Amino acid sequence: MYQPITRLFSKQTLSMKHSFIREILKMTKGVAGMISFAGGLPSPDSFPKKQLARLFSEVVMEDGEDVLQYGASEGDKALKQAILKIETISALDEEQILITVGSTNGIYFFTRCFIDPGDIVISEAPGFPGSLAAMEACGARFVGVEMDEYGMLPERLKQTLKALFDKKQRVKFIYVIPEFQNPSGKTMNLKRRREIIEIAQQYDVPILEDQPYRELRYDGEKIPTLWELARTELKDPGRVTICKSFSKILGPGLRLGYTMGPPEVIMPMVMWAQKITVSPDCATQRVAARFIDRGYFAEQISTIINLYRPRRDAMIEALKANMPAGITWTMPEGGMFIWVTMDDKINTDRLLERAIESKVAFIPGSKFYSEGVSKRNELRLNFSYCDVDSIHEGIRRLAQLI
Amino acid sequence: MYQPITRLFSKQTLSMKHSFIREILKMTKGVAGMISFAGGLPSPDSFPKKQLARLFSEVVMEDGEDVLQYGASEGDKALKQAILKIETISALDEEQILITVGSTNGIYFFTRCFIDPGDIVISEAPGFPGSLAAMEACGARFVGVEMDEYGMLPERLKQTLKALFDKKQRVKFIYVIPEFQNPSGKTMNLKRRREIIEIAQQYDVPILEDQPYRELRYDGEKIPTLWELARTELKDPGRVTICKSFSKILGPGLRLGYTMGPPEVIMPMVMWAQKITVSPDCATQRVAARFIDRGYFAEQISTIINLYRPRRDAMIEALKANMPAGITWTMPEGGMFIWVTMDDKINTDRLLERAIESKVAFIPGSKFYSEGVSKRNELRLNFSYCDVDSIHEGIRRLAQLI
Repeated sequence: MYQPITRLFSKQTLSMKHSFIREILKMTKGVAGMISFAGGLPSPDSFPKKQLARLFSEVVMEDGEDVLQYGASEGDKALKQAILKIETISALDEEQILITVGSTNGIYFFTRCFIDPGDIVISEAPGFPGSLAAMEACGARFVGVEMDEYGMLPERLKQTLKALFDKKQRVKFIYVIPEFQNPSGKTMNLKRRREIIEIAQQYDVPILEDQPYRELRYDGEKIPTLWELARTELKDPGRVTICKSFSKILGPGLRLGYTMGPPEVIMPMVMWAQKITVSPDCATQRVAARFIDRGYFAEQISTIINLYRPRRDAMIEALKANMPAGITWTMPEGGMFIWVTMDDKINTDRLLERAIESKVAFIPGSKFYSEGVSKRNELRLNFSYCDVDSIHEGIRRLAQLI
Repeated sequence: MYQPITRLFSKQTLSMKHSFIREILKMTKGVAGMISFAGGLPSPDSFPKKQLARLFSEVVMEDGEDVLQYGASEGDKALKQAILKIETISALDEEQILITVGSTNGIYFFTRCFIDPGDIVISEAPGFPGSLAAMEACGARFVGVEMDEYGMLPERLKQTLKALFDKKQRVKFIYVIPEFQNPSGKTMNLKRRREIIEIAQQYDVPILEDQPYRELRYDGEKIPTLWELARTELKDPGRVTICKSFSKILGPGLRLGYTMGPPEVIMPMVMWAQKITVSPDCATQRVAARFIDRGYFAEQISTIINLYRPRRDAMIEALKANMPAGITWTMPEGGMFIWVTMDDKINTDRLLERAIESKVAFIPGSKFYSEGVSKRNELRLNFSYCDVDSIHEGIRRLAQLI
């Protein structure tokens, strides 16, 4: 009479896949001597422990009655006010901001607002599996658009949208990581940003801009976000919603991010937050607010940049010194990742097995494409987590396998 | 050409309703002289500020490299180990525990595992709208089962299940708050708990047991949870999943709860957590772990009991002293709520308007029933938030309106 409980599971639950990236991370974690470029982890050396410890104690003692009580689902007012100090664009107000349990949480709420099972999200190919998994959980189907060095190709995006609209497919939004993209490390230039927005306008499709690494720029000039461009130059303030994160600045364990967008999108996202998380941790929100108010934010960002820039440089240097001819890589101006393209004959899924034996790890490129894509000669390297010496040694080990 | 963005919203988003309870809370918040029995808030006097402030500072300084980094989606190992100290049932292990962003978050993940839009959840009537809203967001439909003083009526539950199964409706689970129920304050006795589990076994339907107030018992003997009964006496360890909360003990602003259930349910819940929150706040989790490890937990619970018991007593006393004959109320052995039943002729939705004018607030009973239920003569009173004097004064004001 008793049957396994899985018979009662929802369709989305039954169709959920295990994350291959998580498997790799588990496989390589704690292995003695392993040099892992696989994760997307900030360096623990970057965490502002002393300041946070002091602020937590201060906030709980001084504002305990408030921050230990239920808080607003849209986020702590003090943190929103602090965000308005670092996001210095005109006409931004609290109603356009939602604080989230990390930026993935914002991506989930945004997707939940738009996606019915089977609806389409257009994304970069390769794209970031963490976000795509959150969207897939809502039943989204992905159509990837190929990239050149400046991101999504406008002509391809246009063709893709036209084909989907001709077939009356329900395209719900375009998802992009325009800066130091995960996994490719590529950055959209200004011209490309304008083009992407204009195409979205033409088809009247919203854009979700994911900007977890924006503050981590090691060289080159800051470029306005698509969100900023749409609001200012293109006079289309409802077009773009942007997700940002404190994970790479304060530490991902605090699970704190924020989404900024038009009130007509933020409002239903708040309703989802009410039902799913009630609110982010209120003590942590107030700590982040004070961290900004005290002026620690800019200082912390420059500390991180000074930590990661030499690591990126070391990895580029090591790749140049060790990799055989025919292998190419991106030169990210910021963020945490380098994308390596090998000879067509090299299958990086298979290379990973040998790499792990040699105690070096990466994520094979195939994990960043939707199913059915046959690209097998790429891989992603993270440079934020390991120190400079390990980076040199790890790349040397990897090069020896090729 | 440009159309409102709502045309792209998902069906669930378009069908989401505004919370009437939130409206009442907004309407009464910050009004000078208002005595509100409407919210479900713990008293700020109950928050262990000093201990938490010290532990936050300690945890971030000592374990910062760990707790500021990405953490496991299933929850912090240290907190799970601490929970195993307070949940002293045999054969419980880490794989049966998921730490969540408050217990509502656990209820959402559980529901997401089971519910496809249109599927049925059986719940107590009246029931807790916060949980029901989380379930409704997944597309659940509710079938309420009437209660007597010991909770859901077994005969009614049987009839309901039979009728639904006969019609081949997809019943996914039974949701109960067996202790100091929100909103009624009622507690299921041991016999009733056994009967409910046995009926669930007969129809092979899982039970979701919500236990946010369990530790707040002011008199009477502790009764085993349904989860404990199913695991031990009834030898059916997969039947019940239980959600618990630190909100009423440490403070709801910390957004920390946990779900315990069979690994076959906890595992897919973890997969939902990966996609929606990644993990709860890791610093806060470690703080809760140390709070337990240091032995503060039992002490904190007795502090809260000593704070709330006199408030409950004061409210009962005030009701006795002020309410006209024919009005009855529940005598909760714990928790935060008293349920008042008025004369059939009194409509508590209309009474609320006059009450707010007299600066006293409550939640009308109709808000705790599914749509279409016509009961209008009940109301919920919270006794944890106001002090004893305000309780006496508030009940006096309310009684004068009847």
